[in-house]
Amino acid sequence: MNTPAISRYPVPKLKDLPDDIRARMVEVQEKAGFIPNVFVTLAHRPDEFRAFFAYHDAVMEKDGGLSKAEREMIVVATSGANDCLYCIVAHGALLRIYAKSPVIADQVAANYRKADITPRQKAMLAFALKVALKSSEIVEDDFAALKAHGFTDEDAWDIGAIAALFALSNRIANLIGMRPNDEFQLLGRVPRTR
Amino acid sequence: MNTPAISRYPVPKLKDLPDDIRARMVEVQEKAGFIPNVFVTLAHRPDEFRAFFAYHDAVMEKDGGLSKAEREMIVVATSGANDCLYCIVAHGALLRIYAKSPVIADQVAANYRKADITPRQKAMLAFALKVALKSSEIVEDDFAALKAHGFTDEDAWDIGAIAALFALSNRIANLIGMRPNDEFQLLGRVPRTR
Amino acid sequence: MNTPAISRYPVPKLKDLPDDIRARMVEVQEKAGFIPNVFVTLAHRPDEFRAFFAYHDAVMEKDGGLSKAEREMIVVATSGANDCLYCIVAHGALLRIYAKSPVIADQVAANYRKADITPRQKAMLAFALKVALKSSEIVEDDFAALKAHGFTDEDAWDIGAIAALFALSNRIANLIGMRPNDEFQLLGRVPRTR
Amino acid sequence: MNTPAISRYPVPKLKDLPDDIRARMVEVQEKAGFIPNVFVTLAHRPDEFRAFFAYHDAVMEKDGGLSKAEREMIVVATSGANDCLYCIVAHGALLRIYAKSPVIADQVAANYRKADITPRQKAMLAFALKVALKSSEIVEDDFAALKAHGFTDEDAWDIGAIAALFALSNRIANLIGMRPNDEFQLLGRVPRTR
Amino acid sequence: MNTPAISRYPVPKLKDLPDDIRARMVEVQEKAGFIPNVFVTLAHRPDEFRAFFAYHDAVMEKDGGLSKAEREMIVVATSGANDCLYCIVAHGALLRIYAKSPVIADQVAANYRKADITPRQKAMLAFALKVALKSSEIVEDDFAALKAHGFTDEDAWDIGAIAALFALSNRIANLIGMRPNDEFQLLGRVPRTR
Amino acid sequence: MNTPAISRYPVPKLKDLPDDIRARMVEVQEKAGFIPNVFVTLAHRPDEFRAFFAYHDAVMEKDGGLSKAEREMIVVATSGANDCLYCIVAHGALLRIYAKSPVIADQVAANYRKADITPRQKAMLAFALKVALKSSEIVEDDFAALKAHGFTDEDAWDIGAIAALFALSNRIANLIGMRPNDEFQLLGRVPRTR
Repeated sequence: MNTPAISRYPVPKLKDLPDDIRARMVEVQEKAGFIPNVFVTLAHRPDEFRAFFAYHDAVMEKDGGLSKAEREMIVVATSGANDCLYCIVAHGALLRIYAKSPVIADQVAANYRKADITPRQKAMLAFALKVALKSSEIVEDDFAALKAHGFTDEDAWDIGAIAALFALSNRIANLIGMRPNDEFQLLGRVPRTR
Repeated sequence: MNTPAISRYPVPKLKDLPDDIRARMVEVQEKAGFIPNVFVTLAHRPDEFRAFFAYHDAVMEKDGGLSKAEREMIVVATSGANDCLYCIVAHGALLRIYAKSPVIADQVAANYRKADITPRQKAMLAFALKVALKSSEIVEDDFAALKAHGFTDEDAWDIGAIAALFALSNRIANLIGMRPNDEFQLLGRVPRTR
Repeated sequence: MNTPAISRYPVPKLKDLPDDIRARMVEVQEKAGFIPNVFVTLAHRPDEFRAFFAYHDAVMEKDGGLSKAEREMIVVATSGANDCLYCIVAHGALLRIYAKSPVIADQVAANYRKADITPRQKAMLAFALKVALKSSEIVEDDFAALKAHGFTDEDAWDIGAIAALFALSNRIANLIGMRPNDEFQLLGRVPRTR
Repeated sequence: MNTPAISRYPVPKLKDLPDDIRARMVEVQEKAGFIPNVFVTLAHRPDEFRAFFAYHDAVMEKDGGLSKAEREMIVVATSGANDCLYCIVAHGALLRIYAKSPVIADQVAANYRKADITPRQKAMLAFALKVALKSSEIVEDDFAALKAHGFTDEDAWDIGAIAALFALSNRIANLIGMRPNDEFQLLGRVPRTR
Repeated sequence: MNTPAISRYPVPKLKDLPDDIRARMVEVQEKAGFIPNVFVTLAHRPDEFRAFFAYHDAVMEKDGGLSKAEREMIVVATSGANDCLYCIVAHGALLRIYAKSPVIADQVAANYRKADITPRQKAMLAFALKVALKSSEIVEDDFAALKAHGFTDEDAWDIGAIAALFALSNRIANLIGMRPNDEFQLLGRVPRTR
Repeated sequence: MNTPAISRYPVPKLKDLPDDIRARMVEVQEKAGFIPNVFVTLAHRPDEFRAFFAYHDAVMEKDGGLSKAEREMIVVATSGANDCLYCIVAHGALLRIYAKSPVIADQVAANYRKADITPRQKAMLAFALKVALKSSEIVEDDFAALKAHGFTDEDAWDIGAIAALFALSNRIANLIGMRPNDEFQLLGRVPRTR
């Protein structure tokens, strides 16, 4: 079998990319050992690439009440609801690593209600999924339910913004048929895979 | 009655904003005569503000096979499907202006199938709504349907990317209760309102 | 462009109509300054015309606990849920006029939860939408929720009957492609448009 | 057990009713041997009663391309989709009688695709159910599908109008908890039950 | 008209069947007076026939907190939700017989909320329908709601297992177009039909 | 953290089980190296255990036009649609092993349309998902679509029967909170894990 395409759109060569985009790729490759396909495939549209990762960094790498693992839980749960293979697999790997659990990503992608997470995290994911699936029905009671678990209003924005960003990301990945790197499969599943 | 809040989150004062954000607001105010609330309310989170408008400009102001009116049609149709008041009203005003039609925005927000638009535009909106509502079901036949109306693969990405960006935008607006400026109501509905 | 059809079915001439139907049209024209297309298009079927307006008058013009603006809110909210352009636009105009608000119709059509209306009115619309969208799930708790806001059992019937009548009306309008008159666009949006 | 209520609303006594309404009840009782509860329960609201039966007669008893059995099929199929007990049972009885089949009503209420009806009748019910469940998606192709089976545009209106009227009727019946008369159970199921 | 097929698959002759399967059919015929088509049609696949009826007996004929009528209510309510004609008709007949009510099956198939059953039975059917329609959302609160009506954990398993078995059964019956025997129509509707 | 429960119901000890059930467990342990939790948790109900595995063997281990990998694809795709963690994880492992692909299970669970499978397999999964999600809408065209890819009527029954059995299995697993063994995580993902 031929190698399957990682996008139904052209994928630029590293050497043809604008400097800032190539620099980001080199950086991630040094850290992760490979370049996740989201970088390579979105680079077909440099302006959208820059905006996407700016948004990503703004909501995924900011300070606040959510841990890194919790942010990835939101990505995995909402991407599961949107049937987005790339985000389930790639962010599932990050979730396993941050949460130090080989099984949590499959749990959260399938059904957060039964996952090995805290009641607080279940409340967080209920809110995130409501933003993902029926955001017009968000009312003050939903914020109150978060507050009961210690989340602030700013945390609520963080949760909602991550769900919203991956609403975008899932749609782009599904649109272009973005394929996850095979490397993600084992990350966080076996000792010392990272 | 008191003036209703334009966001359930704090709204920064113009003077307290970073220079680049304030500059963008001043620019839009000079052009439009008022500052749309999306600028004022998102400014509570400067990094997200910058990323959002970078994405917006990348997909709404790029060259390509879609007219300005067609881009706004995509926004209005998908925002209607997501029940997002801000985007229906604000982008409805832009659509009326670009399409030079006082009635088109209400048509597209309610039901594009019966709107006064071309079969090509209906195909465009069918694709956009599929990206908005069930992106995992996008298959090659959907691209072929666009191609039959003269849309290229890059146009398809544009259509999908606009639908995806407003998937994000609708969710943020619904999350924070973003209120449209009253000024939008008449824009494009009466002669010489702009 | 040719004038778009106001119905996919034949539209009778005023002079060919039965006297009672023509009289009703003349009456509405004198009051409103134009004949809303619902009259002209339904006149293709005189018996259904008479029955429809008899039902309309019975539920929209009766006495009871609902104001005229509240009755129109129910029409606009349920017609929004059913994606019926004619009813959103025509009854949106009436709602703006009765509620003396240029923005309320767009709010209620998109998402009543965030509209500038009272908690009592939100409870009314929650009940109306349940009748519109999943009437078999109506239980005594739904009546109790209305009662908590001061609505009587007869008010509940009124709310439900309006939602039910426009369930019919939305379907007929969608079936025949009923087009709203352009005159509705500005009604109630600008001072002294009526 | 006490006799279960036939409506959650007051049911007027025959002697207290306006003459025209009582006359209609007497007439139906003479024909059917009993008064169907739809008459008795709607009589709580005389104006709505009159409008409802005027609409009913206009679409159910007019001439045209649909047989009496076919009209009842539309009622039963759409009432099944709306989970309306009264209309399934009462109109199911009429359907059995008109179609001279003891089993057809249960078939059509559950799943018209597998019912003992003609392909033309299946096309009719597909159209009716689209009007009942997602009328905004009706497009010219739907009319063409009817035409391929010999239905005219006026037949299409008839089909849609019956679906629309029972959209109303189902919602009212569900709202008030209208209970079918026990007499309907055997009508048309056994020889000479009528 | 020809006799309609009772399955789109071949139906074996009684004499060609394995002894154990023929024996079961003879037994049911002696008890019921006819062989329900589920036996005849599933016999096309003897191993699946045996497994199905083993499962059926395990959950429908075991001891426990549910009466025979209540078990059939679960079958009828979930089969109604799945639009499975065979199971609605065949188990509707059993429900009428066990509950000694000619009207209960039509009620439960259409809308259990308005049926002549106890609040305990409504709670049972709410749980069963959640298992049937969105089992991944079952949480401890659902078990608590059952417990409030006196159901034990083992009863909850029974309710869920019946809903699960008929999730299978409904799908097989819909797949093969299993037709109910005409004999079911009158069972339990008239005195002394059994 | 304590070891999480593998079921919300009691789990019998191996020594307390009926001989035939214990024998089956010993057999699977010898082959797989561990006892999958579906055996241990269902053993709480020996009769249902026997019926379930009889059904399982009848549809999963019979001869016919479907390969072992294809049967597991059906399980994984429909279990993904039903959000059933146990079946996604356990049968995902089997699918990886039979298809000799470390990535196929995640693909099929998320979105079979983009998986590395043949058009014939995609047609098979489209049919299976229709049986899983809206079986009442199965019509002859669906069988014809299978036939176009070389599937016989008996293959169609096989596909439907697997989807139907896991409709049951997913609901039971969700009901009792069946937890997948950790051992499944790596099966088929790394060379020589089996």
